[in-house]
Amino acid sequence: MAGNTIGEVFKVTTFGESHGLGLGCIIDGCPPGLEIDEAIIQVDLDRRKPGTSRFTTQRREADEVKILSGVFEGKTTGTSIGLVIENTDQRSKDYSDIKDKFRPGHADYTYHHKYGNRDYRGGGRSSARETAMRVAAGSFAKAWLKNKLGLEIFGYMSQLGPIAIETVDTSIIESNPFFCPDANAIEKWDEYMRDLKKQGDSVGAKITVVAKNVPVGLGEPVFDRLDADIAKALMGINAVKGVEIGDGFDVVEQNGSQHRDELTPEGFKSNHAGGILGGISSGQDIVAHIALKPTSSISVEGETIDVNGQSQTLITKGRHDPCVGIRAVPIAEAMLAITLMDHFLRNRAQNADVVVDTPVIPASK
Amino acid sequence: MAGNTIGEVFKVTTFGESHGLGLGCIIDGCPPGLEIDEAIIQVDLDRRKPGTSRFTTQRREADEVKILSGVFEGKTTGTSIGLVIENTDQRSKDYSDIKDKFRPGHADYTYHHKYGNRDYRGGGRSSARETAMRVAAGSFAKAWLKNKLGLEIFGYMSQLGPIAIETVDTSIIESNPFFCPDANAIEKWDEYMRDLKKQGDSVGAKITVVAKNVPVGLGEPVFDRLDADIAKALMGINAVKGVEIGDGFDVVEQNGSQHRDELTPEGFKSNHAGGILGGISSGQDIVAHIALKPTSSISVEGETIDVNGQSQTLITKGRHDPCVGIRAVPIAEAMLAITLMDHFLRNRAQNADVVVDTPVIPASK
Amino acid sequence: MAGNTIGEVFKVTTFGESHGLGLGCIIDGCPPGLEIDEAIIQVDLDRRKPGTSRFTTQRREADEVKILSGVFEGKTTGTSIGLVIENTDQRSKDYSDIKDKFRPGHADYTYHHKYGNRDYRGGGRSSARETAMRVAAGSFAKAWLKNKLGLEIFGYMSQLGPIAIETVDTSIIESNPFFCPDANAIEKWDEYMRDLKKQGDSVGAKITVVAKNVPVGLGEPVFDRLDADIAKALMGINAVKGVEIGDGFDVVEQNGSQHRDELTPEGFKSNHAGGILGGISSGQDIVAHIALKPTSSISVEGETIDVNGQSQTLITKGRHDPCVGIRAVPIAEAMLAITLMDHFLRNRAQNADVVVDTPVIPASK
Amino acid sequence: MAGNTIGEVFKVTTFGESHGLGLGCIIDGCPPGLEIDEAIIQVDLDRRKPGTSRFTTQRREADEVKILSGVFEGKTTGTSIGLVIENTDQRSKDYSDIKDKFRPGHADYTYHHKYGNRDYRGGGRSSARETAMRVAAGSFAKAWLKNKLGLEIFGYMSQLGPIAIETVDTSIIESNPFFCPDANAIEKWDEYMRDLKKQGDSVGAKITVVAKNVPVGLGEPVFDRLDADIAKALMGINAVKGVEIGDGFDVVEQNGSQHRDELTPEGFKSNHAGGILGGISSGQDIVAHIALKPTSSISVEGETIDVNGQSQTLITKGRHDPCVGIRAVPIAEAMLAITLMDHFLRNRAQNADVVVDTPVIPASK
Repeated sequence: MAGNTIGEVFKVTTFGESHGLGLGCIIDGCPPGLEIDEAIIQVDLDRRKPGTSRFTTQRREADEVKILSGVFEGKTTGTSIGLVIENTDQRSKDYSDIKDKFRPGHADYTYHHKYGNRDYRGGGRSSARETAMRVAAGSFAKAWLKNKLGLEIFGYMSQLGPIAIETVDTSIIESNPFFCPDANAIEKWDEYMRDLKKQGDSVGAKITVVAKNVPVGLGEPVFDRLDADIAKALMGINAVKGVEIGDGFDVVEQNGSQHRDELTPEGFKSNHAGGILGGISSGQDIVAHIALKPTSSISVEGETIDVNGQSQTLITKGRHDPCVGIRAVPIAEAMLAITLMDHFLRNRAQNADVVVDTPVIPASK
Repeated sequence: MAGNTIGEVFKVTTFGESHGLGLGCIIDGCPPGLEIDEAIIQVDLDRRKPGTSRFTTQRREADEVKILSGVFEGKTTGTSIGLVIENTDQRSKDYSDIKDKFRPGHADYTYHHKYGNRDYRGGGRSSARETAMRVAAGSFAKAWLKNKLGLEIFGYMSQLGPIAIETVDTSIIESNPFFCPDANAIEKWDEYMRDLKKQGDSVGAKITVVAKNVPVGLGEPVFDRLDADIAKALMGINAVKGVEIGDGFDVVEQNGSQHRDELTPEGFKSNHAGGILGGISSGQDIVAHIALKPTSSISVEGETIDVNGQSQTLITKGRHDPCVGIRAVPIAEAMLAITLMDHFLRNRAQNADVVVDTPVIPASK
Repeated sequence: MAGNTIGEVFKVTTFGESHGLGLGCIIDGCPPGLEIDEAIIQVDLDRRKPGTSRFTTQRREADEVKILSGVFEGKTTGTSIGLVIENTDQRSKDYSDIKDKFRPGHADYTYHHKYGNRDYRGGGRSSARETAMRVAAGSFAKAWLKNKLGLEIFGYMSQLGPIAIETVDTSIIESNPFFCPDANAIEKWDEYMRDLKKQGDSVGAKITVVAKNVPVGLGEPVFDRLDADIAKALMGINAVKGVEIGDGFDVVEQNGSQHRDELTPEGFKSNHAGGILGGISSGQDIVAHIALKPTSSISVEGETIDVNGQSQTLITKGRHDPCVGIRAVPIAEAMLAITLMDHFLRNRAQNADVVVDTPVIPASK
Repeated sequence: MAGNTIGEVFKVTTFGESHGLGLGCIIDGCPPGLEIDEAIIQVDLDRRKPGTSRFTTQRREADEVKILSGVFEGKTTGTSIGLVIENTDQRSKDYSDIKDKFRPGHADYTYHHKYGNRDYRGGGRSSARETAMRVAAGSFAKAWLKNKLGLEIFGYMSQLGPIAIETVDTSIIESNPFFCPDANAIEKWDEYMRDLKKQGDSVGAKITVVAKNVPVGLGEPVFDRLDADIAKALMGINAVKGVEIGDGFDVVEQNGSQHRDELTPEGFKSNHAGGILGGISSGQDIVAHIALKPTSSISVEGETIDVNGQSQTLITKGRHDPCVGIRAVPIAEAMLAITLMDHFLRNRAQNADVVVDTPVIPASK
């Protein structure tokens, strides 16, 4: 009901505010026997961590995760897993400016009216800091999918403001601060971001996530289709305003003869569908794109109102990402991993007995 | 698990195959006291019904809904509501051609591998016919939201293939076969579709749905955000490949100073957010766009394989929509209605006691 | 939320009032490939059907079930299964007497205050007639558990009013109108019931249900323990006021040295636990007992109030069971079957990979 | 799926093993504005805490709870609440004796076969220590129900082994180590327990829990009836083998004329039903009884097998409760509180608009 849980079998429930004592989550439903430890999780957390480049917030959090339960002698036990990250960088700060004003573009106004009682420090529960626990939980899913199925998930930034990538070289994604797969784009983005920072403004971004070696058969029509649940998981990331599967909005102008992915004994001839047909994975790569809005915390003055309905102006000070899209790559990967993991387990609950004589065709793309 | 249910409080579960005995659904959690009867539902069903224009499938179904329970003396009782539509147009047809071949672009291949046991007649459960029950359930949600909150939902086709609308005149939407709000576009679309039909091909479309008079506070962060659940509901419609909230993918190129919707005592100055901030409704119009792929049932020959993995070719005969987007308008409205209804009830479960002193600002756009 | 669904993987949702147009249910999550047809279901429905002995209500319902979807060519397809039973015996009856009076011991008072809007005809949704759909859904679970696991479920009446059974001979259960496993008790019960009928009164009963060949490992601690979910499923049957697993309330006076079931290489030495340890099935027989209250529909006059709060008296006329326990046997079996089926599927979702070297010991009792 | 969550609106998810780093839980769905702090929770935790009398385990845990999130400036915010208790008394102990042997009457055998991978230290997840978090979560529910509705919950031990209470004086419950409401029974129980301790054996118990001032209308038929969910919540407590609502198993021998609670304008004339009719609260006191088995950790030698299936004997050493029923009183209260809280919120989700003209009659008992 209150929506802090995602997944039905592999269930992740999170808690924690930006400037409270700590963040945490419970993973319930992780299969037993998965080899995991804090070090594996930390790798993903560090990829999301603020302060790794000059274009991400300079707030410094150790983001050190502790496993409190559910892992014994280096393996998951099948019981519920408790994870906690203490908040260490809670500078005693003056929040009087934003305590009673609604920052435009933020969740202040809506949280205030929904709950009546808001932790205004750094956005409270609506802060992007909350996504640290999604990344931690995603590490369990990624590790299991990799170990068990050879399934690989990766993401990259495919457009920053007006500048899109032109090629995808996955080998360079992790070696630049933008998760950029196009060597030419890196420089352009760097320059663009410098200018933007001078203006005190921010910009949107487009992120692409891909899953390879996905088994055929994941997804539960008619409502919990795999694409529907991926859309939910990705749209649920802070700042996301659009989700595409495969060709996405390009399909509007396509003809049927052009869009449908024909089949041959050697595999599909194309992958316009993005790996999902009728809401069920086809074995091809799952490809999704998301649009992230520019962060609203900028040093350009804006109009707003206060809790008494009076007109006010506001400049957001402090350490903020000029492009929230950058740090969203590990989050999007985590959400995709959690969704695929959950659907794999859901599918085997009902369909573990299915024996299909037909050969599964190789997924050519 | 098996995903034939949507909603947590206002829960809709559907059943039924294209060419089985009938379709049906159970609505569980509808508040008591709603005045409703078959005639009200039929209005929406007739809007979705095939055969209403020459550009939709000529299959003729009466689509006559029967309320079996949960409504007594013209009002809902609060108990579970059973709805059934009998399938009347089950022509005894020769399915031998598609029984063993996987139609490209369809769910045949994925259903076959997931379940091992497929009702191949007319797509079985993956047929768009299944959406009739969504529309029927949506009628309950629309009626309740309208009666109780004055909330209005409408949708229209905003682009057909390469031709987008240029204006929105809501008064003409229901008086043309395209749910088109732009008088100029109607003619162009009509001509475009004639040509397409001659070629035996199909085309994609873009649909827009809008909700007006939405209360502030709907949406359950951090996972069941209102935008996340709308994305799921809309991506779960057959053929949908992309979902946008508000400015959608346009945000990629926007700056923060441009995107954030500033607040004044008279209301928000813009609605780039599409009525949702931090995953919670802001009181502004909720605006969503979806991309629908061209139907894969076309008379242009395509390559495929059969259940033995052998190469085959296929032409889809029969009565098919050259643009599935057209009939998708009432379905998208229904999915939005079900989602908003569910979130209204979810919100009051937890937050019915919230008293906010701050005046809710008028939603200017 | 509104609670007309049971199960998480094998999900059963029901609708239907006693005197409405019909009853129905959707089974979502039934594995594909199960051979089933209306005839198999009808066997169980006929065991529950009223009118089979002079001690059950003489209302005559054909209770003929129709499968509308989810079964194709004699096998389940894995998609949602729609079942409907039309109400045929809706005598046009005068309900003016109970329309405005709350029958004591019935749900009239509580439904009235909860929903404000009550179908008073024959108890509406609170009627025992609703359980027909549970029995129908249970048939699918029983068939699957039997075919797949060799698991057998049976039940019997173990006490009628003051007279308890003394032996259990399962071979005679189905050949007497009481589901009685003790030949000596049958006669006594028959005589006791004749007397009771003359007095126009009713009496309580105790029912026992047993599952044999249950796999080790079913149950999801700490809240969805198998015993907890069985307790819920059985307490949710109309008129049930108590549930016991294994020795039940006898454990209050037992010592630990007496209660604990010791293990030997040949199996457990006893089964005080009723087949469940720590909320998880042990492989021994699952044994549960339930207490059913005497029906409140009796021809002995009682005090009550009407909807205006005025004092009234009431005699319930009509066709009523003097001992609702009798017909509860197939219902209790169905609820146990649904629960075990659901937990089997739930367990394999998470734990399908578990390989245990230890031999599973034979369940001696 | 994995069942570490209870509740649908007021959702409690727990984690933690007996001898891991800590226990914790997330409460999701608690309404905002509830005044709460660690001190309030600690009162309940201390009532459950081991070591408070010589008849409970002498293991000493501070059981000090920390609120990590969801409470701001002394009030709940409506976001998810994170609670943690560190395990401080993790004596480095020699577990070699029970590591490979299955303690009879314990969950060792079933956890081993279900998960394949067991934290054997002190029972791991199956330890009664896990219930500390249920008590902590229950404090939130109790506080809210009390503040908002004036609803009161209390429990007591009604039978210890063969010795039942004869009167109920609620004023003395908290002033004796047995939660005993009968001054005469205290002495007898004390003597009985001394003897039992000498023998190294244990004994069962019966606990009664009561809720007063319950609103009419809680419970969601037909499956999530209030009695069904109470049965699940109580049967889900470690060692519980039976649950009764109202007269429970006594109804088997009752006549309808005796059992049904007649209504008068002044209220119900009796409360055989235990406050629930048709699965919905009637406004009368809710009364439930549970049977707890004797703990299986006793110093009387028992037969068992090891993980290789070999015959073994075992004596459980260490600090164990000779009667687990004693400490179960606060746990049972917590489970009842969580269930009622959840159902109150569930009911208002669907039925908040219900206006009933009929006066709610005073609940005389």
